Amino acid sequence: MNLKEKDINQLPKHKKIHLINGITGTKAANLIGTVNENGQENLAVFSSVIHIGSDPALVAFVLRQGKVARHTYENIVQTKFYTINHIHKGIYKQAHQSSAKYEEGESEFDATNLVSEYIDNFPAPYVKEAKIKFALELQEIVPIKSNGTQLIVGKIKEIHIPDDLVFEHGFIDLEKAGTLTLSGLDGYYELNLLARLSYAETHLDIKEIKKDSNGKQ
Amino acid sequence: MNLKEKDINQLPKHKKIHLINGITGTKAANLIGTVNENGQENLAVFSSVIHIGSDPALVAFVLRQGKVARHTYENIVQTKFYTINHIHKGIYKQAHQSSAKYEEGESEFDATNLVSEYIDNFPAPYVKEAKIKFALELQEIVPIKSNGTQLIVGKIKEIHIPDDLVFEHGFIDLEKAGTLTLSGLDGYYELNLLARLSYAETHLDIKEIKKDSNGKQ
Repeated sequence: MNLKEKDINQLPKHKKIHLINGITGTKAANLIGTVNENGQENLAVFSSVIHIGSDPALVAFVLRQGKVARHTYENIVQTKFYTINHIHKGIYKQAHQSSAKYEEGESEFDATNLVSEYIDNFPAPYVKEAKIKFALELQEIVPIKSNGTQLIVGKIKEIHIPDDLVFEHGFIDLEKAGTLTLSGLDGYYELNLLARLSYAETHLDIKEIKKDSNGKQ
Repeated sequence: MNLKEKDINQLPKHKKIHLINGITGTKAANLIGTVNENGQENLAVFSSVIHIGSDPALVAFVLRQGKVARHTYENIVQTKFYTINHIHKGIYKQAHQSSAKYEEGESEFDATNLVSEYIDNFPAPYVKEAKIKFALELQEIVPIKSNGTQLIVGKIKEIHIPDDLVFEHGFIDLEKAGTLTLSGLDGYYELNLLARLSYAETHLDIKEIKKDSNGKQ
């Protein structure tokens, strides 16, 4: 399949959406939890969460104004706080269900039977069933003029990961966590670690980072 | 492991980098190909490529100014054109090697033995060994003030995918393509399709999209 811009423009609507949503490769599969000033909670799947920087620890995601994302956006602007929760194998069907269009006043937590959890007085709800989760404070809303979307940039305030999912030097074992990756609109993939590769040095061959007999690296 | 912001700030430098690079979940694993006005080619791994919109077909990635990304940035600003190439199992070690710091005048294509390929007179080089690849024209450079990085937004001009990797309705078979996903700085994972889920409707259970006996969906 070799498409030029004019061919892409002429694709049937749903084929175009599937193809263009899949062409970038894998996407992080996360649930974003928020609550408004009246205590009304919201939960939504986002597939555009990306790393922006480590020091300060900044994470961003793309928000397209629309019925599904509206409550997430309004709650973040109102309260400044939100959580990001990895979607794993045990909760992906419930997570996907949260992308349905619920009315104002209806919580996706209730609709999907996922449990909202407040930890150490952080003012936004986590997903109790998520293993890897972290909380953020809004830093910056960056307008993307090309199509009217926005990049929501937040600073990490808290991180919660079970100890057995983190190696001593900080690498997170996503396979053991059951974290999934998303492709297109609706494809959920499991992960199998192929290799970890050493830092690339000029003209030297890349080496695999071997585990010792205890699985430590 | 439960960390507050002050704990994160106090982590040893490399542990912080590994942890914060891994906390967002999986990342798309792509090679970006560019060439400058003098014909000097450049190739670099980027793990921040994300979908911005389908109509128009827009894709973005985060660029941090620095030695490795500098040539990619300069070439895109000079020529406006670049390619994005999925990293698959057959080329991931060579791809990772491209992130070493090469000097001006040295091509990562030569250093990694990946072959540059020009298709239909598009002015930026593809990776010949990549199966899924597409080409873009720069639309917008969006500054992220929080840490001085930039979001590079491009419009898709061409797409090349082998026919057997695309379903009739546009879903791309990333598992069959051998496309990998990245975690942290150096973890490469293979994909196993767990399920495709139907569009979420309110109060209805999510259903899996079943393949028929020919594998068509």
